[in-house]
Amino acid sequence: MTRDTASLLADRTRLLGPNLPTFYDDPLHIVRGEGVWLWDADGRRYLDCYNNVPHVGHCNPRVVEAICRQAATLNTHTRYLHDGILDYVERLTATMDPSLSTAILTCTGSEANDIALRMAEGVTGRRGIVATDATYHGNSALVSQLSRSNVPALGFGLEQFFRLVPAPDSLRAPDPDASSFIAAMQQQIDDLDRAGIGFAALVLCPFFLNEAFPDLPDGWLKPVATAVRAAGGLLICDEVQSGFGRTGTHFWAHQKMGVVPDILTLGKPMANGHPVGAVVTSADTMAVFREGFRYFNTFGGNPVSCAAALAVLEELEERNLMAHADKVGQHARARLRDLMDRHEVIGDVRGSGMVFGAELVLDRTTCEPATAYTDMLINILRQRGFVLSRLGRHRNTLKIRPPMPFSTEHADLLFDALDDILTTTPVTP
Amino acid sequence: MTRDTASLLADRTRLLGPNLPTFYDDPLHIVRGEGVWLWDADGRRYLDCYNNVPHVGHCNPRVVEAICRQAATLNTHTRYLHDGILDYVERLTATMDPSLSTAILTCTGSEANDIALRMAEGVTGRRGIVATDATYHGNSALVSQLSRSNVPALGFGLEQFFRLVPAPDSLRAPDPDASSFIAAMQQQIDDLDRAGIGFAALVLCPFFLNEAFPDLPDGWLKPVATAVRAAGGLLICDEVQSGFGRTGTHFWAHQKMGVVPDILTLGKPMANGHPVGAVVTSADTMAVFREGFRYFNTFGGNPVSCAAALAVLEELEERNLMAHADKVGQHARARLRDLMDRHEVIGDVRGSGMVFGAELVLDRTTCEPATAYTDMLINILRQRGFVLSRLGRHRNTLKIRPPMPFSTEHADLLFDALDDILTTTPVTP
Repeated sequence: MTRDTASLLADRTRLLGPNLPTFYDDPLHIVRGEGVWLWDADGRRYLDCYNNVPHVGHCNPRVVEAICRQAATLNTHTRYLHDGILDYVERLTATMDPSLSTAILTCTGSEANDIALRMAEGVTGRRGIVATDATYHGNSALVSQLSRSNVPALGFGLEQFFRLVPAPDSLRAPDPDASSFIAAMQQQIDDLDRAGIGFAALVLCPFFLNEAFPDLPDGWLKPVATAVRAAGGLLICDEVQSGFGRTGTHFWAHQKMGVVPDILTLGKPMANGHPVGAVVTSADTMAVFREGFRYFNTFGGNPVSCAAALAVLEELEERNLMAHADKVGQHARARLRDLMDRHEVIGDVRGSGMVFGAELVLDRTTCEPATAYTDMLINILRQRGFVLSRLGRHRNTLKIRPPMPFSTEHADLLFDALDDILTTTPVTP
Repeated sequence: MTRDTASLLADRTRLLGPNLPTFYDDPLHIVRGEGVWLWDADGRRYLDCYNNVPHVGHCNPRVVEAICRQAATLNTHTRYLHDGILDYVERLTATMDPSLSTAILTCTGSEANDIALRMAEGVTGRRGIVATDATYHGNSALVSQLSRSNVPALGFGLEQFFRLVPAPDSLRAPDPDASSFIAAMQQQIDDLDRAGIGFAALVLCPFFLNEAFPDLPDGWLKPVATAVRAAGGLLICDEVQSGFGRTGTHFWAHQKMGVVPDILTLGKPMANGHPVGAVVTSADTMAVFREGFRYFNTFGGNPVSCAAALAVLEELEERNLMAHADKVGQHARARLRDLMDRHEVIGDVRGSGMVFGAELVLDRTTCEPATAYTDMLINILRQRGFVLSRLGRHRNTLKIRPPMPFSTEHADLLFDALDDILTTTPVTP
């Protein structure tokens, strides 16, 4: 049936429960998508400057065709032999360091991180996990502990094993050689040791995407990885957001940051919205997990999931979307820097490839976050037909992370509108 | 690419790691499915007497069409409003007691059970979980503790919160009024209390499907639920296998067993193989979870998943598959009882609707399990073109749990073959 917005909201609360997040003060009722465009129930069109799950575009024809073809042919599980999962993992791992040679396919990034943490426990014999303090890694009882800010009482006491360190903030606390980050991490490792827990792994998004993608030099994680391994821990890179060419310069953000993780986790964009995630690691670490734990995932790695995921890799390659992301990102950041020259509220412009944004501040000297203004801005943009969001510890950074086919012309539509709003609706002190 | 069996096995180990389970001594390489039939890479046809995930048949046209149509129209997430998830949850909960009125949609049954356990923690303020000792409820760090036999060292110490009780065994230890089961559960509840953990929930499949579906009278769980609630705990029914009309007499096995669970979890057959799971509970319990935990699942409840799941409900209803399951199940059990009259190795015949099987024993008086013979039997059946498996604490019960369109004619094909094998390849003492 077709409900109006009031009925949709009422039925959500009745059927799905309270406290269910929506975007915007006036939530969107989207009914159709194509490429970088979305349409609401009234036929109004929106430019999608935000969604990374439809990585190669909403309703990408190659992915839809792959799903339909395989769903009509066979969909079973990995207790039968099938070429699909092997073809996919072969092609996926070919984009990585040779040490990252084996994979478990899951249905979500949460499931992937849940496995990764147990792999670290298995390899190190310890349980202490360090993560950054303004991020999100998933929703299982174990993994949700990595996003402590969201998680209060529930979780079977697992919080005892987790320690958080401040995410890098290139605007307020530059740390170009990572020495501050490493010192903070070492404090937490020492604390885990004192507690008798011991250090198992550092988990992070190598582009710190949820932490408002601070401006860090390529290779920044190298000394961090050295410190992690000196302390006997594993480096887990969660590339659920930063992978698959998103940053434009490298297929994986860990490559950009100069490291090879011990464990790599994948999710959201992997199959363009079909529920697929993965854990990629070395043969040795995989053996520790597989032999210590008889893991099986009913839907994970099924033929339809693998067909969808393979179509995404093919589309990225044949349309050369990583180079495209690099080009569009450069154009977008130049446009944002131009806006920064003319609008005091823009305190910093950051990003790489198809993830870019501006940090909005009330004062460029103190860097006081313009949090309320940022919220107002994305709600005005939504009314003008642009879908985006905000992020970071202060929720004051515009998060522009569109599907990969987003073009310079699309960027111009967005920044022309943003320029107009910043001019007509300035920050009120 | 197309690999032969040896290459498939070698590539699985290389790309997916060791200790990855397959079915059969000579694993199947399935490439196509339709209804209750599967075809291998050599074009050989198999009757699928086992797979419950393709609930309404392999490549069911209605489900495939729903997936293709919605995947080509829109696939986003629940932070936008959409009718699909609401239409589905409305229709799903209409099959249940009115107290089961709200749902969270996930991607897997594991994710659903992971939430259910945290709901029990949230509602009771305690963490002790009791489950049966020969079953499986999923693969997350938390949920895998419910399947202790599979899970050794890994799991962040969560095993401290879990206690197992013997699953009912109607052949060896009849317990028609559940008094033995309740006494064993009470011992574990007392043990949790003594340990200072306290009792939060009993988790079980209400048809004890993994435990070789013992022959229990309808309503058997009633006194169990009373004892659970008297101890201040919640009853969690995992209907990942037993639901959606499988047992023929009731849409949900908990209805057959005379109880309304506090929390119900769903998975495998829900969307015929598309990755979908769910937690269904009361508005009050949902509020405790949603308000204590800002849960969001990127793929969970997306429009394609909901379209696939809705198509399964429509197919069940329009083809009247629950009544069909009841009829086929009666025929199948009659055939099995006839085989039991003529073959000493069949020690018991059990089941309901589209789940039935026979327990194989070396001696009908001692009930000594014919475990090795059962294993040989399913491997011979596989060579003859029949896909099924075995289960139970002793791995000696034939597990026949086909897609719901399985007919009496299909059952006859299977039991004619079984009769022949039991005659020509008897148990060697």
